[in-house]
Amino acid sequence: MEAPVFIEGLPGIGQVGKLVAEYMIEEIGAELVAEIHSVYFPPQVLVDEQGIARLLDNEVYLFRGETNLLFLVGDAQSASGEGHYRMAGTYLDIAERFAVRRLYTLGGYGVGHFVDDPQVFAAVNREELKQEVQDAGGSFSSEGGMGIVGTSGLLLGMGKSRGMEGICLMGETSGYLVDPLSAKKLLSVLCRLLHIEVDPTRLSDRAREMEQFVQGLKEESEREYERRKSSEDLVYIG
Amino acid sequence: MEAPVFIEGLPGIGQVGKLVAEYMIEEIGAELVAEIHSVYFPPQVLVDEQGIARLLDNEVYLFRGETNLLFLVGDAQSASGEGHYRMAGTYLDIAERFAVRRLYTLGGYGVGHFVDDPQVFAAVNREELKQEVQDAGGSFSSEGGMGIVGTSGLLLGMGKSRGMEGICLMGETSGYLVDPLSAKKLLSVLCRLLHIEVDPTRLSDRAREMEQFVQGLKEESEREYERRKSSEDLVYIG
Amino acid sequence: MEAPVFIEGLPGIGQVGKLVAEYMIEEIGAELVAEIHSVYFPPQVLVDEQGIARLLDNEVYLFRGETNLLFLVGDAQSASGEGHYRMAGTYLDIAERFAVRRLYTLGGYGVGHFVDDPQVFAAVNREELKQEVQDAGGSFSSEGGMGIVGTSGLLLGMGKSRGMEGICLMGETSGYLVDPLSAKKLLSVLCRLLHIEVDPTRLSDRAREMEQFVQGLKEESEREYERRKSSEDLVYIG
Amino acid sequence: MEAPVFIEGLPGIGQVGKLVAEYMIEEIGAELVAEIHSVYFPPQVLVDEQGIARLLDNEVYLFRGETNLLFLVGDAQSASGEGHYRMAGTYLDIAERFAVRRLYTLGGYGVGHFVDDPQVFAAVNREELKQEVQDAGGSFSSEGGMGIVGTSGLLLGMGKSRGMEGICLMGETSGYLVDPLSAKKLLSVLCRLLHIEVDPTRLSDRAREMEQFVQGLKEESEREYERRKSSEDLVYIG
Repeated sequence: MEAPVFIEGLPGIGQVGKLVAEYMIEEIGAELVAEIHSVYFPPQVLVDEQGIARLLDNEVYLFRGETNLLFLVGDAQSASGEGHYRMAGTYLDIAERFAVRRLYTLGGYGVGHFVDDPQVFAAVNREELKQEVQDAGGSFSSEGGMGIVGTSGLLLGMGKSRGMEGICLMGETSGYLVDPLSAKKLLSVLCRLLHIEVDPTRLSDRAREMEQFVQGLKEESEREYERRKSSEDLVYIG
Repeated sequence: MEAPVFIEGLPGIGQVGKLVAEYMIEEIGAELVAEIHSVYFPPQVLVDEQGIARLLDNEVYLFRGETNLLFLVGDAQSASGEGHYRMAGTYLDIAERFAVRRLYTLGGYGVGHFVDDPQVFAAVNREELKQEVQDAGGSFSSEGGMGIVGTSGLLLGMGKSRGMEGICLMGETSGYLVDPLSAKKLLSVLCRLLHIEVDPTRLSDRAREMEQFVQGLKEESEREYERRKSSEDLVYIG
Repeated sequence: MEAPVFIEGLPGIGQVGKLVAEYMIEEIGAELVAEIHSVYFPPQVLVDEQGIARLLDNEVYLFRGETNLLFLVGDAQSASGEGHYRMAGTYLDIAERFAVRRLYTLGGYGVGHFVDDPQVFAAVNREELKQEVQDAGGSFSSEGGMGIVGTSGLLLGMGKSRGMEGICLMGETSGYLVDPLSAKKLLSVLCRLLHIEVDPTRLSDRAREMEQFVQGLKEESEREYERRKSSEDLVYIG
Repeated sequence: MEAPVFIEGLPGIGQVGKLVAEYMIEEIGAELVAEIHSVYFPPQVLVDEQGIARLLDNEVYLFRGETNLLFLVGDAQSASGEGHYRMAGTYLDIAERFAVRRLYTLGGYGVGHFVDDPQVFAAVNREELKQEVQDAGGSFSSEGGMGIVGTSGLLLGMGKSRGMEGICLMGETSGYLVDPLSAKKLLSVLCRLLHIEVDPTRLSDRAREMEQFVQGLKEESEREYERRKSSEDLVYIG
């Protein structure tokens, strides 16, 4: 088997990375190859709508195609700093077993306000990767001294010493809500980088639903404001 | 010896699980078979009314009867996330020595307000266990994405990979006070599941005392309110 | 050598235990036999008035006399829960090397207000020790469910499983200031228990100085209050 | 090779130690001999203005000259207490490989207000080092009981038990901003101690820029104050 490209999409800001990676797995039909539990995850189980409890669980999926893809997705990042380093080491051990040479790590870039046309920011672990990312629509922030906290960052840094190329893509997002619009933009940049096509229709649908939900929230809050204003008027008139 | 059923009732919300498990041990007369100390417990000793200090201590009790029962009760859950996982592993090691195949984990389900007729909510680690739980009076919440934090949850999740069936029962409770009423309801569901009978009289007594205590608090707070109102009236009249 | 009695006086509430143990070491002239450093101590050095830095350091002193005494004193308790357990284990390892069979652990019992005639409260790890403690002037609180956090507590609890008798003495203290008066009371109870005499003069001196210091604080705060009142009067008169 | 003198300048108050050590490395042209990564560092990567991500990284540089110098500089101190001790042990292991017998640890001494002519405070791990430090312009505070938290302190304390002389130099600084003026003063004391010369011109330039920046902040805040005052006057006039 040709060495797969590694794609990490664990929970994080706006769930952008998780949305993209899990969407790809569903759309292209990748196969579960490993489950990861850890004492570094938060000490709890999740219970689904059926009442079935299960451990927090990160998963590795393999897709065999023109380009082979190895996905890391799941429920949790580590709850401690030391755990973050140790888990990133474990993820890279798995990547090495598959002879991975390139890593994509996906996340959100929180800006604190709603964004109509989110950008996709990038960081790389080798200079020669930049052109490729820019050609695919990724931007490099000119602010220096930025940090990337957690798995997405550590995989780039620790992957480098194992000889792996690393590209982190971060969808611009408010940071307040799950953000399928940002995920859709990120997906399109990633697909250009991978030279594959993934139909974004269902993600567009979710983005539209989320937009309507946000719109609804805004209108509700305006109506509430008007209600209060008129009832205060009444009081004052009285 | 027939493999016992494992019943966990460590401290938690409303002390519901602890109340039920310790009540059963007293009522049916189980025998202490192990004491557990851990560096993961809070670093302190407890001093009783006699001035005798002892380490925080979880205990395992065995009851031999028609159905053999192995109880885990005690003073403490772990103080760290990693400790929670490691202690749950230790508890399952003990369960394995007794060839346990079914786990019941008991706890409270905090709702933030007083409840007159508390329900018993449940989660299981295998779908085929649901019917049995429902027949015994347990309910499954239809809200997904719920989490069960701590030992009760981890035993279900980690027990599954060791081939053990797991049922978590959670008595609905305010979360403000020790709740023997919720414990009594949970006990009745558990007894139906175990096909055993445990006389709930003393637990009913405690529930009635607690009800009177809460009632007393309410009346005291109302009298206080009236006192203040009338003294303010005096001031204004003056 | 006859097995020594172990006396722990590490930093804690009102520094009561530390005051007593270090005072005894100076008065009776015990000899340094061990220094203890630990990754569980806070990560810093102390610098004395001469500008000389040294690691945080707990120390073991041995006194050979009618009754042999082994003291544990020093700069620090552990900064983490797990560290508390592990360090207590280390202290008991040292005690075992000296074949210690009785432990005294000394501390303060914070009550949140100044106390003119502080009591000495006690806890023991075996019921048969109580009479002896009461005869020497120690009191047992009748409130149950009390906890003793940190080394003083853990040595009692963990010492028991190693076959050591343990008595914790706690001098009643406000908890706001270093309290040599409380220490003096504790010292007298401890000396009766040990059947030794230690001249308390210098501790009495320190208690008197501290009393004058507190008295000074009170008067200063009253003068300040009067000053403010009269200057406000002036403003209002003006 | 003659045993080098060890100079630590990791991040800390006012970045004073880091400024001095990194400035010396650049000015005298030391050579990178080791990179240090650790699970005890914060779990993140840094991204530079080019978009290149790299792990947090401490570095050891060697300068071979009349006096050989071994520098420890970098991005991070440990994020946990235990990590501080373990990393300090690692740094000393490295120093031992180079047969280091003297350590200089550099830092800031925060005073909470701006200082026009910052002093250089010192602490040592052996009394006989004091005269030398004072001759070079370092001061010893007469306040006892001071603590030095983190690597600068632990290297002195832990180095002592490995037979290494240790001198900690701390430039007086507000603690609010990066402080090249304080660094310049510290550099001059250190150079006298090392009997070497390092041209401080570029550090003086940075100090002047920082002074102008602070001056600008002050003037801006005064102008803002005046603007507000006059607009309030207008309102009141109106």
